[in-house]
Amino acid sequence: MPPAPLPTGRNAKPRVVIIGAGFGGLAVARGLAHSGATVTIVDRQNHHVFQPLLYQVATAGLSPADIAAPIRSIVKRQKETRVLLAEVTGVNADQQRVLLSDGTTLDYDFLVIATGARHGYFGRDEWAEHAPGIKTLDDATRVRRNILLAMERAETIRQESLPDRDEYLTFVVVGGGPTGVEMAGAIAELTRHATDMDFRFITRRCLRVMLVEAGDRLLPTFPAKLGDAARKALNGLGVIVRLNGRVTDIGDYGVTIGDEKITTSTVIWAAGVQASDAAKWLDVDADRSGRVKVKPDLSVPGHPDIFVIGDTATLVDASGRPVPGVAPAAKQEGTHVARCLLARFTGSRTPPPFRYRNWGNLATIGRKRAVAEIGSFQISGLPAWLLWSTAHIYFLVGFRNRIVVGANWLWNYITFERGARLITGMTHVARHNA
Amino acid sequence: MPPAPLPTGRNAKPRVVIIGAGFGGLAVARGLAHSGATVTIVDRQNHHVFQPLLYQVATAGLSPADIAAPIRSIVKRQKETRVLLAEVTGVNADQQRVLLSDGTTLDYDFLVIATGARHGYFGRDEWAEHAPGIKTLDDATRVRRNILLAMERAETIRQESLPDRDEYLTFVVVGGGPTGVEMAGAIAELTRHATDMDFRFITRRCLRVMLVEAGDRLLPTFPAKLGDAARKALNGLGVIVRLNGRVTDIGDYGVTIGDEKITTSTVIWAAGVQASDAAKWLDVDADRSGRVKVKPDLSVPGHPDIFVIGDTATLVDASGRPVPGVAPAAKQEGTHVARCLLARFTGSRTPPPFRYRNWGNLATIGRKRAVAEIGSFQISGLPAWLLWSTAHIYFLVGFRNRIVVGANWLWNYITFERGARLITGMTHVARHNA
Repeated sequence: MPPAPLPTGRNAKPRVVIIGAGFGGLAVARGLAHSGATVTIVDRQNHHVFQPLLYQVATAGLSPADIAAPIRSIVKRQKETRVLLAEVTGVNADQQRVLLSDGTTLDYDFLVIATGARHGYFGRDEWAEHAPGIKTLDDATRVRRNILLAMERAETIRQESLPDRDEYLTFVVVGGGPTGVEMAGAIAELTRHATDMDFRFITRRCLRVMLVEAGDRLLPTFPAKLGDAARKALNGLGVIVRLNGRVTDIGDYGVTIGDEKITTSTVIWAAGVQASDAAKWLDVDADRSGRVKVKPDLSVPGHPDIFVIGDTATLVDASGRPVPGVAPAAKQEGTHVARCLLARFTGSRTPPPFRYRNWGNLATIGRKRAVAEIGSFQISGLPAWLLWSTAHIYFLVGFRNRIVVGANWLWNYITFERGARLITGMTHVARHNA
Repeated sequence: MPPAPLPTGRNAKPRVVIIGAGFGGLAVARGLAHSGATVTIVDRQNHHVFQPLLYQVATAGLSPADIAAPIRSIVKRQKETRVLLAEVTGVNADQQRVLLSDGTTLDYDFLVIATGARHGYFGRDEWAEHAPGIKTLDDATRVRRNILLAMERAETIRQESLPDRDEYLTFVVVGGGPTGVEMAGAIAELTRHATDMDFRFITRRCLRVMLVEAGDRLLPTFPAKLGDAARKALNGLGVIVRLNGRVTDIGDYGVTIGDEKITTSTVIWAAGVQASDAAKWLDVDADRSGRVKVKPDLSVPGHPDIFVIGDTATLVDASGRPVPGVAPAAKQEGTHVARCLLARFTGSRTPPPFRYRNWGNLATIGRKRAVAEIGSFQISGLPAWLLWSTAHIYFLVGFRNRIVVGANWLWNYITFERGARLITGMTHVARHNA
């Protein structure tokens, strides 16, 4: 199929629709700021979320507003960029239309799908209810509520129900990638300091934080040495790391690892991901996780006017390595698509195929502990933590948020306080056995 | 009835139960810190909320965590004070027991009820659904969502539905007391700056913010001069102030004032209050708003072991004036009850009857505008605003929150930015006619 013709006539501005205002989608919009195209960003939420810090919201270190910014204010200086709060239900590629949940449609000349991924439960969708993942602000505040409520219940449990108390003080994180490692470390810190400072009847010795990983080491995408450093750092925080631990069941009671049943009220999922429905919308080839197999220019085979980027796409890039599902990759892909589109608008030479530049990998394990890989350098401990903090504050969208997050972290560091320990969105206080 | 005897025997520590961790309840707990009594604070929420700033959360100026602090961390240094997250359903005064929603009970020697008030709709409870008030963090984030969603809908409405657009850009606040005045001013500022900066199709000329007051002036508890200053300041922000406006109906369509129907998607209630159920629990005399008529020492007639304070109580104090339903009054009452209890524990002389000390009244109307009454001084404009800001930052619970709120306000002041413009808790994006 030949490249889609540019619209002609009086209204010759090409119409670009971007679905999803994550790192990828925003990078496309930014790249097209002065392109002369009419850009429409469609998102279900009114805000962009800095996903790498969602776990800090879930563990009461930061407030939702610290790591999010309204999409409108991010693009407010791009006068040709529109923002539409709406839910996409499908794409009609023949008619070049995006279908919205209210029955209306949105016409495009070029479409970029950057809808990311949600959690995948390997076909066991019934686990989702008991083991939420953290992909949105609402997910994060829900997990925060679960953790804080569990501690309240443990504190106020009656004497005769004491044997039941352990389930409230056991926290299981499933998945030993960066999210799982960061989450387990942050839960250990939150719960230890809360028991030391705020509670009367439960102590840090009653706590049990477990990190379960199916493989034989943590951080499988990092060098083995750093996976080991992460494990030791987590052990130092009192986290029980279970390698080669296969989750066989999750239910109301807790989680089963192999044959071992663990009774717990809090299970957090940080294992598989499942791409959003782009492949179904387009009826094109996808991998096992639902990611669309894109061409080297990130367009969809058979649809030169449609691009898929970020966690929704899968690609072995020009260097021969698969592009990882991380924020920098999504950003770089977005910038690449903007360049390809600009080339098409102006008829100039098509950019070379996409190639991911890996600037490094970082994961943090609480105060003063982190692991980092930058090129051939591998560091851990305090230097890695300082690097991690600086990088994350730097990349936060919006100057204001950088200040607030920086101040919050500094404050937490000095005082061990957690400012956002609010249980909100409770419609009912259900005190179990208490 | 004679004063309740102190508990005797081996376990002679008197047990004080405080229901509600608002300004009043916390003041009691603080006053009993070194009393030797075992104090239990029961609250439905795990956090204390600085209610005078809730309207700033509702208008995206501050985040929930900026104006709230976990109750446990407020009392963490009081080792004899326990915190219980639970819902109270009643009181058995004969058996000296508080009944909880999970069927369990809590024994007391002395009980302090400081459960505050919720919004009262003058018997038209069906209005609550369409015109929420702002009493909790969840209320405030709900109102924030309503306001921000209304603007999104107005922005993305289709050409053919343009006549319907006005309902999304009309915001009606009912009640001309301090809360209503502050809310109307904040909505005007939020919406004006958002239309100027972030939106493409709606402008500040499309906006209509109305404040409806049944009486013939704003701020009825302030001197007339300040009510007038507030009206002028609101007019300067584009707020339409409707005095002598009687709300006769509220529904899905909007609100009716007298005979005039106003079509709007956003109505906010800041009019009547209704005390919590304390009077029903105790089966004692209450006024029209459900407030318990307490004795000069704030105890309940016939129940010398039970005290009711704050918005749940009504009293003409030793100066012959009714105690107003404001935060400083609740605090002073709490401190007074703690003193009365200490006197009973030690058998020392009973303190003189409660007398409210009015340090002044303040209300703010957006950036740089406020009105204040301190003794015989009446000020308005920028000096009043500076006073208001300083006072509120000073009284915020927790040193950390003071810094964050201070920094946020300064930032807003310099940039006109609003950091917390997040629409969260949406389970479904319903775009109407768009």
